[in-house]
Amino acid sequence: MNEFFLNEAFKEAKKSFDLDEIPVGCVIVYKNHIISRAHNCKELKNNAIMHAEILAVDRACKKLKSWRLDDCILYTTLEPCLMCTGAILECRIKNVYYGTSSKSKQMFDIKALDNINFYNMKNVDCSNILSDFFRIKRLK
Amino acid sequence: MNEFFLNEAFKEAKKSFDLDEIPVGCVIVYKNHIISRAHNCKELKNNAIMHAEILAVDRACKKLKSWRLDDCILYTTLEPCLMCTGAILECRIKNVYYGTSSKSKQMFDIKALDNINFYNMKNVDCSNILSDFFRIKRLK
Repeated sequence: MNEFFLNEAFKEAKKSFDLDEIPVGCVIVYKNHIISRAHNCKELKNNAIMHAEILAVDRACKKLKSWRLDDCILYTTLEPCLMCTGAILECRIKNVYYGTSSKSKQMFDIKALDNINFYNMKNVDCSNILSDFFRIKRLK
Repeated sequence: MNEFFLNEAFKEAKKSFDLDEIPVGCVIVYKNHIISRAHNCKELKNNAIMHAEILAVDRACKKLKSWRLDDCILYTTLEPCLMCTGAILECRIKNVYYGTSSKSKQMFDIKALDNINFYNMKNVDCSNILSDFFRIKRLK
């Protein structure tokens, strides 16, 4: 099931790619159903908070009409940044599956956050779409 | 000027207080003008991301039509949480003035983030409104 949901997050990442955005996608799962999905659209919206995970948390809260997402699982194609990790902490999601680790090293070890379990799924598609994106960027 | 802007953030915190929300307010200043203001409304909106600072960053990006808020200064009544610190980092705000330090100790030292200067203004109003809020909560 984890592979299936990560692939759904990857479909979201492809939307970002097609929009010339850093390709990151996210889905949030509750009782084995996807209740929210989002892709990074920071450049398009010109808005620093428009990361896939923040948008997915926002939508999941609206969907469940609750800021508590304790029983949800978050799948994201890329290891979350500081802001998104904070959002995950705020909504009390306990389990986070990510496709590939973040190359831009964090200023702290987010895995040190005891309240969240992070699982690196080492997914080649999630990693390749990012390399492809930056390779094309450099060629332009 | 810092005292003036922090007081404007405090006016926002009072709005949270009146709504029975944890009283935190924030303003973002650009060229000596307040371009966005927000108060915490997490409970009212039932949404984990609705902290004052996230909302203020969101509104400032929309106002300036840019995700880069390099030349802005953020004033908040309470030392920002992990999520909001991440948002400040994402939008590249360099200077953050806060009214009082966070009593719920962070899992890491946010002051360690080299890209942001944090200034604790040790403002009694910002501190008292929080103590009052939690005292009333306990009495209920």
